[in-house]
Amino acid sequence: MTVTRAACEQLDARDPLAFARERFIVPDGVIYLDGNSLGCLPRTTAPRLAQLATKEWGEDLITSWNKNDWIGMPGRVGARIAPLVGADADEVIVADSTSVNLFKLAAGALRLNAPRRVILTERRNFPTDLYVLQGLAEFAGAELRTVAREELAGALDKDVALLALTHADFKTGEIHDMRALNAAAHKVGALTLWDLSHSAGAMELFLDRDNTDLAVGCGYKYLNGGPGAPAYLYVARRHQQDLRQPLSGWMGHAAPFDFSETYRPADGMLRHLCGTQAVLSMAALEEGVKTFDGVDMSTVRAKSRALGDLFLDLVESRCGDFGFAIACPRDSQRRGSQVSLCHREGYAIMQALIAGGVIGDFRAPDFIRFGFAPLYNRHVDVWDAVDRLATIMRDSVWREARFQGRQSVT
Amino acid sequence: MTVTRAACEQLDARDPLAFARERFIVPDGVIYLDGNSLGCLPRTTAPRLAQLATKEWGEDLITSWNKNDWIGMPGRVGARIAPLVGADADEVIVADSTSVNLFKLAAGALRLNAPRRVILTERRNFPTDLYVLQGLAEFAGAELRTVAREELAGALDKDVALLALTHADFKTGEIHDMRALNAAAHKVGALTLWDLSHSAGAMELFLDRDNTDLAVGCGYKYLNGGPGAPAYLYVARRHQQDLRQPLSGWMGHAAPFDFSETYRPADGMLRHLCGTQAVLSMAALEEGVKTFDGVDMSTVRAKSRALGDLFLDLVESRCGDFGFAIACPRDSQRRGSQVSLCHREGYAIMQALIAGGVIGDFRAPDFIRFGFAPLYNRHVDVWDAVDRLATIMRDSVWREARFQGRQSVT
Repeated sequence: MTVTRAACEQLDARDPLAFARERFIVPDGVIYLDGNSLGCLPRTTAPRLAQLATKEWGEDLITSWNKNDWIGMPGRVGARIAPLVGADADEVIVADSTSVNLFKLAAGALRLNAPRRVILTERRNFPTDLYVLQGLAEFAGAELRTVAREELAGALDKDVALLALTHADFKTGEIHDMRALNAAAHKVGALTLWDLSHSAGAMELFLDRDNTDLAVGCGYKYLNGGPGAPAYLYVARRHQQDLRQPLSGWMGHAAPFDFSETYRPADGMLRHLCGTQAVLSMAALEEGVKTFDGVDMSTVRAKSRALGDLFLDLVESRCGDFGFAIACPRDSQRRGSQVSLCHREGYAIMQALIAGGVIGDFRAPDFIRFGFAPLYNRHVDVWDAVDRLATIMRDSVWREARFQGRQSVT
Repeated sequence: MTVTRAACEQLDARDPLAFARERFIVPDGVIYLDGNSLGCLPRTTAPRLAQLATKEWGEDLITSWNKNDWIGMPGRVGARIAPLVGADADEVIVADSTSVNLFKLAAGALRLNAPRRVILTERRNFPTDLYVLQGLAEFAGAELRTVAREELAGALDKDVALLALTHADFKTGEIHDMRALNAAAHKVGALTLWDLSHSAGAMELFLDRDNTDLAVGCGYKYLNGGPGAPAYLYVARRHQQDLRQPLSGWMGHAAPFDFSETYRPADGMLRHLCGTQAVLSMAALEEGVKTFDGVDMSTVRAKSRALGDLFLDLVESRCGDFGFAIACPRDSQRRGSQVSLCHREGYAIMQALIAGGVIGDFRAPDFIRFGFAPLYNRHVDVWDAVDRLATIMRDSVWREARFQGRQSVT
């Protein structure tokens, strides 16, 4: 029997995360299922930016580096992210972009695991991960070995310096078994580097428990840090003393304000900073991460799975005749916080949904994606989204959107 | 005869840049001579940030990448910076930090000028430039040749792939002859990479005219982009097709939203982007650069030289007995937009000045620096600053500040 909207309202009424939605400004009339691309605006962010600009920058000027602890932000915000990914506070720091951080840590891993020269990844890895690894391999004279997902375990051998993967597939939402792949990599002496961009903030992660070596992730998706928010890096404590990365800028120096002539890496995670960090954007990320204050990540994960299952149940019961194929794992244990459907007219269908106030996104050639941010998405949002989808398909509304120009940003 | 304060008021009254001070919020009671570390807050920045957060991010959400042209910001802001450095609009792009950009372009230059493996720089280069070049050289198996300023010309030989220098010395303010050094480098087949952080926005620069190959610079000093503002890169058009840098993230891809598996560099400057850019910080930089709208850079340079000369004249006439040595060129043609004094008690003297509302900064071992931002610093500011300095020295006020802890940020 199809779930009713009233039943969804009841689920929302007893949702233990219901309080968190109040921490965001969700625009009226919009069902936003694209928090996996850009998280919603937290209620505290605009006031924080105003305070930072007018008071800290405008009045306190240069003294704010100490007086308002701008200098401590990368470590402070990193420490806030750490519990969301199953790390200790001193294992995470915020800096630069995910792509730049991938370069740093993959380069550092090649150096640490020399003379091995192979980086192993999967063909369906997120494109910027592939591109950065390609650029690094070419520059460092390393080999990038790119295989299909199911060939990963077999491709791990004693030449592999680093296994670099994205935890949740950006198209299908399928998640890797991080613990098992870490173990398989370690068995042949390889290190692991995980991109958590499509996972962190929407599910439980256990970097320390699962023996992960290195990780990076994005601040602007489920962490609600705002457009192009700074990213973060994780280095397991056991590697922190030996791992060095080549982007050795002054903020990673052991004593940057001595202005000495020779680089000497700082202890711990600070050595993974390069230049001066974007303070305004980092303050917005801090507000984004604060939306997780007092939130239990196992509750987040349970709601994420429930919302995905609800979406798929409703699609099956209400859109079964419209030619959709489910392109994500049906089993929520193997699925990240998104569902993906394939449809020949996927692009036009998503355009029609967006025009009707349901924001998801499209990925070539025929994927439509809906992300669930458990802090602000409700069960009724899922119900309303599928209701709109069913209407669009029944009335063929999507035909009008068929020939519009394509562009999208994750 | 010593210049009077009244004479300075008259100079300000006929200052052709007087209108520009209104574009900033300069705090009352502060004489801010540290725009070479962090520029003042432009009047339009806080409103722009509010609009960006609440409307573009909060309401338009993911659609803003196209609707509000977030995607075009790096090129758009770069095009605004271009005329300030003597470049064409399509030769400059904004991205990442100065340190990260230095790595990109120096690595690209090594690749372009292979098999040469020497990077030549000077010992007094800004520390992060030295550190980044050290990290790159070690990673790339290149040699970093570091010599004294006066040995640079002699150290240029046929092994040198790249001459990498900062235009204005951060301690002494002395500027290099960019045109002559470019010519000397080109004569032996070397490329040049200039760090403009301590120059751009305070003086005329002629990257194209002077045959510069590559340049980077900082957004948060004279460009008024806010703390940790994104930086910029310049590549002369003649190199744009051939120069490739190893941080090949998706935003530098020729078609990032095709999500193809193989990196293909974009044309022109776009290939120097790596990951997603910090939109909030970049918007603040855009407002910072807009403070130069309608401003003629030769007028900026003339005022910068006049303020520096006025400061040194007043120090000579009023502080001659207090043990200061002038540590910057006395000839304003050879001097950037700062003056530097050396004094055994420099740290304590600067602390006393700051406590009295005159903000400059200190650089070990004994330099005190005063930067002049011609858009908002006035002749009376210079007069008042030296007046305060003379009082502090006459009354030995600095003794109280002698033992305070040291820290500073450029």
